[in-house]
Formats: sequence, structure tokens, C-alpha cells
Amino acid sequence: VEWREDQTYDGVRERLFVVARGERQVPGLLWTPAGQPSPRPLVLVGHGAGGSKRQDYVVALARRFVHRRSVAVAAIDGPIHGDRRADPEASVGLTFLEFSQMWAADPEMTDQMVADWRAVLDQLTTLADVGPGPIGYWGLSMGTILGLPLVAAETRIVVAVLGLMGLTGPTRGRLEKDAPAVSCPVLFLSQRNDELFSLASSLELFDALGSADKRLHLQLGRHGQVPVEEFEASERFVARHLTG
Amino acid sequence: VEWREDQTYDGVRERLFVVARGERQVPGLLWTPAGQPSPRPLVLVGHGAGGSKRQDYVVALARRFVHRRSVAVAAIDGPIHGDRRADPEASVGLTFLEFSQMWAADPEMTDQMVADWRAVLDQLTTLADVGPGPIGYWGLSMGTILGLPLVAAETRIVVAVLGLMGLTGPTRGRLEKDAPAVSCPVLFLSQRNDELFSLASSLELFDALGSADKRLHLQLGRHGQVPVEEFEASERFVARHLTG
Repeated sequence: VEWREDQTYDGVRERLFVVARGERQVPGLLWTPAGQPSPRPLVLVGHGAGGSKRQDYVVALARRFVHRRSVAVAAIDGPIHGDRRADPEASVGLTFLEFSQMWAADPEMTDQMVADWRAVLDQLTTLADVGPGPIGYWGLSMGTILGLPLVAAETRIVVAVLGLMGLTGPTRGRLEKDAPAVSCPVLFLSQRNDELFSLASSLELFDALGSADKRLHLQLGRHGQVPVEEFEASERFVARHLTG
Repeated sequence: VEWREDQTYDGVRERLFVVARGERQVPGLLWTPAGQPSPRPLVLVGHGAGGSKRQDYVVALARRFVHRRSVAVAAIDGPIHGDRRADPEASVGLTFLEFSQMWAADPEMTDQMVADWRAVLDQLTTLADVGPGPIGYWGLSMGTILGLPLVAAETRIVVAVLGLMGLTGPTRGRLEKDAPAVSCPVLFLSQRNDELFSLASSLELFDALGSADKRLHLQLGRHGQVPVEEFEASERFVARHLTG
């Protein structure tokens, strides 16, 4: 792992890192409470299509977890997102379009992203102010497309927030296969007026999850309009399982 | 209103009352913080079929609202439930059976219960330790069958917890008519394995609610297995709208 930037603002330390995995460079951010070198739980945040590890809601969520729950948070860029792009300043629309095509055309995309996350996890859990876990996962939409298979594969993850996704799309078969292998407590978020993924397909994915402890919260609004209420509910849910 | 019993335990005062409305006697319980004679918000709790104003979860919910939120709580017996019966010790099964028949056979049942609640509300809001409101409503299953029309009619009610019910049953038409008139914030609770009312009909009722601010929480388990998590979430939700 290569550490690139290290800055502290308002009690939260933010470190930029790049983990090398073969020829792949995996760029990420780590947020921790400043000046507290003891081990703590870690929450992995998977952003949505068109966004990045630096987008507003990811940073806000991370800082809130650090401030209120004193846990560590890490986010990495998704495939062809953020610092993985030659043009990291590309528009949300262009990035979304290219991701949509990659989702349809690259059968390795999910496995690569799962391996990226696991390589990052292996590095971060050696840090004095992170430690071995427990680990939580938080990811909606593309964060579920690529994150649900991670949660299914990674036994260190003990709680997950998933949603804004259904049993649909190019990797429907992969989600269908992996969902029953998810066994940790899950909070699944859906939007009643989601213009991308139907409530019916979302319920199919929710029902397919293997977890004995799961719940679905349905809110009004479109795909991108998850209300603050659910950010708070998900923070509470994750913290309850990570810190008791 | 006639006050019958008055006892205080662990900081919570519990008063048994009977409100006369024409020939009808409406028995209820009022819980308030002991020794705090100032006005406070009031939460009305409508119990489920087969239960009563005294059943375990109603009393537990009421005492928790008083303890943690310092609001007042009132519950009244539903039609042919509790002290409205000649045999108040009748089994849950017999009471449930008789309610089911009344639901099918008595077209006045909903209007009578709405009028009972409003008569009780008129009385309780004159008390020094309750006052004019704001008012919340909390009722699942029969508490929604009979409570949704109350919430639709009563502008003093500013927040409601409803659920375990769908657009179905003998009073389906009444629910269909009244749901669009509900305009306050609503938390709607559903159980994925509800053996009485389907998720599809529950979503129909949720969608029919007129409220611009509503959300549905779906949990695993059967009709009667609403988890503690949702009692806590509903308490938080109601308190947020009643006390800010």
C-alpha cells in the first residue's frame, strides 16, 4: 500500500492510499478519529455508478461514522470511476454510461472488484488504528451490484447495508447465486419511485438474501433521493452490530 | 368521563376511565409522567384484534413513551374487546373470532370506533397534564382497520404509525376511501411472512395513503412477530414529530 495524502480536519483524519494488486492500482480513502491509535471497527463504503470515493454523500457518511461512532471508514473507487480514470474529472453522466456498458460487457468486473476490496481490507486491518475488525459494508445501487458478492464472500463482514438494486441487469445471475450466501444482518433500502430498478425486483433480491436477520425500508422518492432519515437509520444499524 | 382507578408505579401514573357516549361506555387507560402537571403531547394506541388496552405490548409501549419521551399515552378497548365485553376474561381466540364476524357484519363498526376515539380525545385534552396536543396515533392490524379512518378524520393527529394491514377485508372500500385523506407523516409496518394480510395488499394500502411523508418498514416474521427494533423505530418516529 502506498500512502499519498494525510490530512486532518475537525477531528477526522483522512488518508489517500493506493493498493497495488498485480497490475491494478486500487485508489481509496481512509477516515479515522484523529489521535486515537487503538483498534476499532471498520466500515467499507461502496459508492454508486457515476460517483467516486470522494463524492459528497460518501464523505459525509464517513465523517459521521467517525464523529458519532468512532469507527474507521474506507471507500475505494469503483471500476472506471474516480482516480481509476485517465480523466478523473469526467462527468457523472459519462462515467455512468461507461459503467453501464462495462456491466453488460465485462464478465470479470464483479470478481475484480471483490478482489480489490479484499486486498484493501488485508492492508487496512494491519493498521494500529484499525485492526482486525469487525467489518461492516455499506453500498447502494452499484455499491450493491459489486458489494453484495463481497459481503457473500467475506466472512469478516458482519453487517451490511444494501439496496437501490433488484434481481435484474447483466449480472442478475451472479446476484441470484450470491444472495443466498449473504448471512450477516442486512438493512435493505428501496425507493418507491425508483426509475432504474422496480420494487418487485428489489423484493426479489431482498427475499433471496440468506440472512435470517434482515429488514427492508421503503421510502418515497426516486433512485437518487434516499432521505437523511435512512442515512441515520443505517448508521444506527451498522453501529449496533459493530460496537454493540 | 368517570375516573375509576388511579395508581402510580415507577414514575408512571395510570388512570382507568370510562367515557360515556350516548348509550356506549368507552373504557380506556391513560398513562402520564407522575407529578408533572404541565401539558404534553398525547399518543393514542389502538390495540389489535383479540387484545385489549391492557395487553402486554400496549402497556409496555405506553410506559416506554412516558419514560423516555415524557408524553401522555391513552388506549381504549376496541369493539367487543376488554372491558366492553360481558366476559372480559374471554380468550384471545374467541375475541378474535367475534371481532372477525363483527368486521364482516356490522357496517357501523368503524364509524362508532372513530366517534369513541374522538369523544375520548375531547375529554383527555381538557386535562391539565395532557392539554390540546399535538396528538399521535399508533395502531397495527385492527388498530389500523379502525385507526386509519380516525387519522383521516381527525386533524388534531399529526403523526401516525400504521400497518399489519392491507387493502383487503370487509372494510376494504372504507380504507380505500379514507387512505387518501390521511395527510400526516406515516410509518407503515409490514411483516414479510404475514399469514393474514399479503405484502401486495399492504403495499396497495401504503401507496393509497395521501401523506407526502411516508415510509414502509418490512421485517421478517409472521403477523404477530413485529420485532423490538420496530417498536423502537416507531417510538423515535412519533417522538420526532410530537416533540421535535
